Amino acid sequence: MASPTELTAMRRAIELSSRAVLTTPPNPDVGCVVLDAAGSVVGEGWHEYAGGPHAEINALREAGERARGGTAVVTLEPCAHAGRTGPCTDALLAAGIARVVVAVTDPNDAAADGAAILRAGGVDVETGVLSGEAARANSRWLTPFHTGRPFVVWKYAATLDGRSAAADGTSRWITGPEARADVHRLRAAVDTVVAGIGTVLADDPQLTARTDPPPTRQPLRVVVDRTGRTPSDARVRDDAAPTWVATAAEAGAGDDGEVDLTKLLAALYRDGRRYVLLEGGPRLAGAFWRDGLVDRVVGYVAPALLGAGRNALAEAGVGTIDEAIRLDVTDVTVLGGDIRITAHRKA
Amino acid sequence: MASPTELTAMRRAIELSSRAVLTTPPNPDVGCVVLDAAGSVVGEGWHEYAGGPHAEINALREAGERARGGTAVVTLEPCAHAGRTGPCTDALLAAGIARVVVAVTDPNDAAADGAAILRAGGVDVETGVLSGEAARANSRWLTPFHTGRPFVVWKYAATLDGRSAAADGTSRWITGPEARADVHRLRAAVDTVVAGIGTVLADDPQLTARTDPPPTRQPLRVVVDRTGRTPSDARVRDDAAPTWVATAAEAGAGDDGEVDLTKLLAALYRDGRRYVLLEGGPRLAGAFWRDGLVDRVVGYVAPALLGAGRNALAEAGVGTIDEAIRLDVTDVTVLGGDIRITAHRKA
Repeated sequence: MASPTELTAMRRAIELSSRAVLTTPPNPDVGCVVLDAAGSVVGEGWHEYAGGPHAEINALREAGERARGGTAVVTLEPCAHAGRTGPCTDALLAAGIARVVVAVTDPNDAAADGAAILRAGGVDVETGVLSGEAARANSRWLTPFHTGRPFVVWKYAATLDGRSAAADGTSRWITGPEARADVHRLRAAVDTVVAGIGTVLADDPQLTARTDPPPTRQPLRVVVDRTGRTPSDARVRDDAAPTWVATAAEAGAGDDGEVDLTKLLAALYRDGRRYVLLEGGPRLAGAFWRDGLVDRVVGYVAPALLGAGRNALAEAGVGTIDEAIRLDVTDVTVLGGDIRITAHRKA
Repeated sequence: MASPTELTAMRRAIELSSRAVLTTPPNPDVGCVVLDAAGSVVGEGWHEYAGGPHAEINALREAGERARGGTAVVTLEPCAHAGRTGPCTDALLAAGIARVVVAVTDPNDAAADGAAILRAGGVDVETGVLSGEAARANSRWLTPFHTGRPFVVWKYAATLDGRSAAADGTSRWITGPEARADVHRLRAAVDTVVAGIGTVLADDPQLTARTDPPPTRQPLRVVVDRTGRTPSDARVRDDAAPTWVATAAEAGAGDDGEVDLTKLLAALYRDGRRYVLLEGGPRLAGAFWRDGLVDRVVGYVAPALLGAGRNALAEAGVGTIDEAIRLDVTDVTVLGGDIRITAHRKA
């Protein structure tokens, strides 16, 4: 059983893990706290960027010799594979850690023997401590293992009254430069961006991540385009990033003849895609929600009013208030003059 | 000229004044900081509730004898009238205050000789210090003096996608109990609540302030009802509060035959009304915005999605994105599971 000190350390480790949200796209968000033999915090770490040291390594470095005989409290089972930074199990053994407290066991086959290796090395290992909280904090990475599809974030920008365009269709710019820069960071963090043909025809977006410095890799651009109407000169077809125009013939169609979104996501998953940013328009977003395929919402709300024009979301399969899609707000941040609201499906 | 110490004190006084927002409906929001002769803060106060001691009195009490020879920094010119708590000018003179720094001079005739009385008493008085910031913080009270109409707050409740009802018209409940309780506090703070006939026919709201303890006085309920269709058994006609069914014949009509909202507000002003809560529906709110008659927005945003149904705002006279009504966010608060966004017209 985890001690009160270890529970406190795990809560802190979960908090640390959340610092990694936008920086480690292909990797899990992990936090680690190292306690010395007396139970005092002597090291903290999180996984700061892809290819960088894992959370355990960062925490052990800070702890130094004080880790010997101590306890490592970590949100995800330490890896046993020699990745770019070497296995964490080796580092924990070398540091003389006597006990490892884990929240979530690793569903990734390649790394899943971390706990066994530690035990074989004489370390006392406890798993499942605050696993619910830790799993939620790491849901972006864990969801694909459980669902067989990428984690899907729906991003929208709207006015206070929920409009994403004015009566005449104009929408540039609803939000300010800080919010727009944040969208580019979000694109840089995912491996796939999805938009509907309506949005491509109306706004001709490029859908690339324009960050400074530029991302090491652009996400795949996917246009959900039943009949293949994406113009040959659409910006989404430029050579700034790879593009897949997903027609019904290619991605598979549902009973209604539209692109089957479940099949589309399964195809992306088979292609190694784990993190999708859904950028609309309103009908495509509505279809994703209707099919239960959205995990998180990031809404950029501009303090502006339009009173007319396109809504951010349409036709989500909700007929009456009791059927409303209910979410939990996990973050509210002011970005420039706008408000970013992050929420996820109610558990 | 105000010293840097006095400017800092004024910023603090403005901050203190904002604590009064929901508690002193007929009174201004005032904050006061008392500095001793050496410039140290020795007292802080704000006007906590109607009928309670003014900000200056609260700050002087905390300062005690240390106020002698010191400076009172106050967001609004001290009153010279013997209200329920006696004139603040008397208290400042009795405390031996040597200097008074004022942001905004009092536009209220009955009290407007406060600075003169203090000067006659030998006090050095400076006015207009950070008056813009202070006026904005006190705009709820100052606006009626400058416009000849009540200060108007538009309140709405909506989902993340801007819907205030589902496709079938159901809307109970979009927001949770904390947000709804906050609406009742808002009603208790105003002297008038306005709703349109559409809302009365659709939802049959009572439009009273149901707070615990109940408010000492219920706001006037006004139904904007061009042709007088409010049913005789509508809840808004019960005896829980006074009600005015404002028909076009009675309140005056515009060129379009609708109730002229500028005339309506002027009539309320003549009746002594200074603080209106506009509760919709979407078309009435749109008309208020179109006519430039809204000063503040309080939006209760539920983390829910509907994808269809009535929008919170309609027909606000905006045709293209450049005409969007732009606001400044002044507060974002999480209330239960919902988000309250407060914003006002861009200066």
